[in-house]
Amino acid sequence: MVTVSIVNVTSYTGLELLRMLARHPEFRVTCVTGRSAAGKRLGEVFPQLGVSQPELASLVLANEADATDLAFLCLPHAAAAEAAIKLLQRGTKVVDLSADFRLRDAAIYEEWYKHTHPAPALLETAVYGLCERYRAQVERAELVANPGCHATAAILAMLPALEAGIIGSDIIIDSKTGISGAGRNPTPGTHFAEANEDVSAYGLDGHRHLPEIIQELAAATGAGAHPVDGRPRVSFVPHLIPMTRGILATCYADLRSAAMTGAEVRSLYERHYENEPFTRVVDAPPHTKWTYGSNLCLIYPTVDQRTGRLIIVSCLDNLVKGASGQAVQNANRLFGFPETTGMPGIAVFP
Amino acid sequence: MVTVSIVNVTSYTGLELLRMLARHPEFRVTCVTGRSAAGKRLGEVFPQLGVSQPELASLVLANEADATDLAFLCLPHAAAAEAAIKLLQRGTKVVDLSADFRLRDAAIYEEWYKHTHPAPALLETAVYGLCERYRAQVERAELVANPGCHATAAILAMLPALEAGIIGSDIIIDSKTGISGAGRNPTPGTHFAEANEDVSAYGLDGHRHLPEIIQELAAATGAGAHPVDGRPRVSFVPHLIPMTRGILATCYADLRSAAMTGAEVRSLYERHYENEPFTRVVDAPPHTKWTYGSNLCLIYPTVDQRTGRLIIVSCLDNLVKGASGQAVQNANRLFGFPETTGMPGIAVFP
Amino acid sequence: MVTVSIVNVTSYTGLELLRMLARHPEFRVTCVTGRSAAGKRLGEVFPQLGVSQPELASLVLANEADATDLAFLCLPHAAAAEAAIKLLQRGTKVVDLSADFRLRDAAIYEEWYKHTHPAPALLETAVYGLCERYRAQVERAELVANPGCHATAAILAMLPALEAGIIGSDIIIDSKTGISGAGRNPTPGTHFAEANEDVSAYGLDGHRHLPEIIQELAAATGAGAHPVDGRPRVSFVPHLIPMTRGILATCYADLRSAAMTGAEVRSLYERHYENEPFTRVVDAPPHTKWTYGSNLCLIYPTVDQRTGRLIIVSCLDNLVKGASGQAVQNANRLFGFPETTGMPGIAVFP
Amino acid sequence: MVTVSIVNVTSYTGLELLRMLARHPEFRVTCVTGRSAAGKRLGEVFPQLGVSQPELASLVLANEADATDLAFLCLPHAAAAEAAIKLLQRGTKVVDLSADFRLRDAAIYEEWYKHTHPAPALLETAVYGLCERYRAQVERAELVANPGCHATAAILAMLPALEAGIIGSDIIIDSKTGISGAGRNPTPGTHFAEANEDVSAYGLDGHRHLPEIIQELAAATGAGAHPVDGRPRVSFVPHLIPMTRGILATCYADLRSAAMTGAEVRSLYERHYENEPFTRVVDAPPHTKWTYGSNLCLIYPTVDQRTGRLIIVSCLDNLVKGASGQAVQNANRLFGFPETTGMPGIAVFP
Repeated sequence: MVTVSIVNVTSYTGLELLRMLARHPEFRVTCVTGRSAAGKRLGEVFPQLGVSQPELASLVLANEADATDLAFLCLPHAAAAEAAIKLLQRGTKVVDLSADFRLRDAAIYEEWYKHTHPAPALLETAVYGLCERYRAQVERAELVANPGCHATAAILAMLPALEAGIIGSDIIIDSKTGISGAGRNPTPGTHFAEANEDVSAYGLDGHRHLPEIIQELAAATGAGAHPVDGRPRVSFVPHLIPMTRGILATCYADLRSAAMTGAEVRSLYERHYENEPFTRVVDAPPHTKWTYGSNLCLIYPTVDQRTGRLIIVSCLDNLVKGASGQAVQNANRLFGFPETTGMPGIAVFP
Repeated sequence: MVTVSIVNVTSYTGLELLRMLARHPEFRVTCVTGRSAAGKRLGEVFPQLGVSQPELASLVLANEADATDLAFLCLPHAAAAEAAIKLLQRGTKVVDLSADFRLRDAAIYEEWYKHTHPAPALLETAVYGLCERYRAQVERAELVANPGCHATAAILAMLPALEAGIIGSDIIIDSKTGISGAGRNPTPGTHFAEANEDVSAYGLDGHRHLPEIIQELAAATGAGAHPVDGRPRVSFVPHLIPMTRGILATCYADLRSAAMTGAEVRSLYERHYENEPFTRVVDAPPHTKWTYGSNLCLIYPTVDQRTGRLIIVSCLDNLVKGASGQAVQNANRLFGFPETTGMPGIAVFP
Repeated sequence: MVTVSIVNVTSYTGLELLRMLARHPEFRVTCVTGRSAAGKRLGEVFPQLGVSQPELASLVLANEADATDLAFLCLPHAAAAEAAIKLLQRGTKVVDLSADFRLRDAAIYEEWYKHTHPAPALLETAVYGLCERYRAQVERAELVANPGCHATAAILAMLPALEAGIIGSDIIIDSKTGISGAGRNPTPGTHFAEANEDVSAYGLDGHRHLPEIIQELAAATGAGAHPVDGRPRVSFVPHLIPMTRGILATCYADLRSAAMTGAEVRSLYERHYENEPFTRVVDAPPHTKWTYGSNLCLIYPTVDQRTGRLIIVSCLDNLVKGASGQAVQNANRLFGFPETTGMPGIAVFP
Repeated sequence: MVTVSIVNVTSYTGLELLRMLARHPEFRVTCVTGRSAAGKRLGEVFPQLGVSQPELASLVLANEADATDLAFLCLPHAAAAEAAIKLLQRGTKVVDLSADFRLRDAAIYEEWYKHTHPAPALLETAVYGLCERYRAQVERAELVANPGCHATAAILAMLPALEAGIIGSDIIIDSKTGISGAGRNPTPGTHFAEANEDVSAYGLDGHRHLPEIIQELAAATGAGAHPVDGRPRVSFVPHLIPMTRGILATCYADLRSAAMTGAEVRSLYERHYENEPFTRVVDAPPHTKWTYGSNLCLIYPTVDQRTGRLIIVSCLDNLVKGASGQAVQNANRLFGFPETTGMPGIAVFP
């Protein structure tokens, strides 16, 4: 058995990791940490665990992670990088769910996160944990940067078109997310009475998933290593939707050839993802609810005949494929298990 | 025009008062206060006001209420009583939306609120602002204690049966409320991600609306002035429902006579409320959504033939008839206007 | 008093008209029709009316509209045109909430609606009922085509930029709507269990609001009268959101001048709408909930500095400014009353 | 492997069975039927299956069940009994999710379901599939009547108190259910626009789960076999809540002894259920969301000190422990597997 720590387990992504790892045949959670709840049992933090998983529920939250084989970091940025340094030195492999190792260029990190990167040297060895693109690198990594939730939906939607070079550089990503993406800390914006029956756009001045999206879309176009010089001209606007889980990204780009048909684009996408266990091309506009609780990313490419635009709709569960599920997928790859090992099955529907 | 202060306007009940008073032909809001937001304009606190009500939006929040003709208090308990003392001394009539003057017995207040009553002398002159029962007293009052939201739904459901003496003293009130009842302060329990797709019971050790309910049900039975000696043996369990507004109370009591029919009970209820502008007996189980944004309380009495029990379902919008709407209804009565003056019309449906 | 018919009152837009007209000082509903419910009283169709508006509730649904001064048509397309012919012949002014008279070109209508237009001659005199653009024409009209809900949000967002000529012809409109927009007829897609916790795109092959949007955006660019020759190259993708009311449109277009600042765009928009009673420019990303139950359309223009794109977010209540509220606004104008007469006030929030 | 048919798989309970059986190590779904969709593949009926479970998705819906080892019936009442007769004759064991075999007395069935029972002879051998009470009988059964969702929550809440004889016969069950309990057929009452932001009571004239509840509560009191002669005097009022999944039942009964404490009751309940894998006593009021997607039933007994009443709150996921999960639990027992085999793990939270 591979021993596992979950650092800052008191977050929604921490709980979601517990949900998956409780059924995982190869990973065993032996250590959980949580700053504010250190000393408590997991069953006190998440009462529902007490009744379904007495063993997990009895784990006592530590201040710091033990020297397990693997650690998942559910910390805020900066804190994650500092924890990663220590864990890697002790020989623990790390899957970091924060943004700390997603951007390869420390200067861009500092521009968006407004502080010096705590571990710039690690940026060179960290691997962006999108198995659909970096599977081989994840397999050899010590440190995996788990992608952002909006970024996963957007990048998986655009990769086939960009790699095939069928679209221009103008890209618009209009993303819709459920409220769990805002984290577990209650704020006026997450108050049920204000979030229910409401939609709004946010991050219009620049959301932190944007540089990550640009970096990966630029890489896919082969535009070179330095992302800000990359060619894609991306606008990204996230929206808050009155639901708990789910992201749906609607992506727009101009096709280079007016002659390209929807069937051709669709065939290109299907070939691109034909061997992927979790990223699937669907033949009708997908619903976020089809992915609720599962690790699927569903992708629907279509051509707007009137304008010659490619429109791609992608969706996923922001806490699973957009966070903890993808983290376990990466961990499976890190330790040489099939990527599907221990993953949740059919979405909970309705 | 009657000049009006809204004290602690930054609450949900404060905003709801603004919504009603903005269209009221006799009341004019000239002063608003808010502790945390003093010095700001109302349009900053509630941005939506800026676009619909520029005049209201430009009011600057004061620290303390001016000497207006009328003040609505949206303060927490204890703070409300202290504010009331000052305002009454200056000749301002007061409608208090807190619990401070609802209980006639200071000892009971202290048992439930765990502190000495700040103004016990005022308890003798304060009137419980349920026009359906105390209309004449409200008209002559200086200080009106606006009833609690659960209490309004429960008391209006039980009054006709208790006054007519057709039921025994065993009463169960199972109440369901939307989340705006928890107030505007964000907490883990009001986080959309946790409150959505969830129902739970709360206040099982005794909810603060219970003594208010007992007091009024006891008074309706004619059991005497001191509520704890009153006869009703009431269990009251509130539940949190994943919706913003609305309370639905399901009330259970034994009929004294096994011969009494549903039609007879129904006829009794219809006669009891036949002249009420806002409390109406309906002939099908009511939906909270039929009251959304309106000042209605809908009541449906029925007899469970198999057990001889009277079951009464009542519902209302907790922020309107359960709070600010009832407060304006009381204020209309206080100043001699028809109770329906300036009240919202048809519920917003769907 | 102006006598009013509501044709097909059993729809959500019919009920919403009742909500507004019940408080309107100049219009009086004297006739309501409803095909499936003819012979019933309004209070049977909408039980909530019975308790709040006994007079309205007692109106009996007719098969056909009387010869009132004004009729609102809440019929499906084609049926609406046929009803309009008869009513206009009898001298009744008509506000049609269907799509039948929105498109000036019968050929385009037939392309999108797959049948011959029942009254092509009326297309020349019908006025597109967007007061923000056609106020003078509405005032002189006999027949007003009330705009579609998505179209209202999108057109009001784009008008100032197009009329000022500051953007190119590439326009993307990503629209999000609540479920009441799907109408009152229950379908699998409107089932709570499937619509809740779900977002999906629809109409990807071409939504019927698209030609209406293109027609009006083309007109705003001065590209001439025949819409398909118009220049805008518009992609429009609507999305279904788990809420009852509200539309939020996020619109993307390239600025012609890289030097244009957000402040300049904002100032342009503010001047454009400065005298509008219901369409307002806001200084923070708006929330659909700020418009719940009101006739407001809120508009937030911003410049994406990284790409030089103009992004405009607009929102409204699809049943009010997107349907019945705008219809009453048009009717006020038709009969020479101020547009704000009898309109709902502050949004119901939270 | 045990071969399994799901009869009428196109229902919500059918889909939920697929979700569980897809991961079950001992059961293999080899046959699915669905009247309206016969001839279609499962992936057409539930598109989400196509991407996650290609093998299941390719099953073609038959008109009638094959001769598998086991069949789950998701049919309406009467149709279920007819299907059961045929399947049992062919040697297929049956778990029936309808009400057809829940009531032991055909006369009571006919009173509530208004038609003659199609297979009264089978009532004698059918076992009420509540493992917490009839585990031994389920193990030997050929035909299991899977309990109703409200009934499961109510009976499990009351069993310990009734078997121990600590309460009187007056019982009130106030139950709150999500909308998936109404089934997959869209109706006005399940329309998102009307069900959202709404609570209402239904079944006030007598809900069909009532005789089932009375039968089992009477049996628990030892009052004899014939349920209507049983002693419990039960009022049961279900309420529709704006959520997809979940039932929470709040149950009220008088304690016989005024001296009994909450701790004593709690201890009694904990002992009663200490070995149950899915029914658990919790030490805080439970949330339906703690059971979302899991097979748990959570039970919280408490004593209302002021009145001497026992109040028990119980909750579960109506599609899992209230239907398909309990069905698989019964099937496990039928075939001699541990009851937890293949069951879903931790609830999906948030």
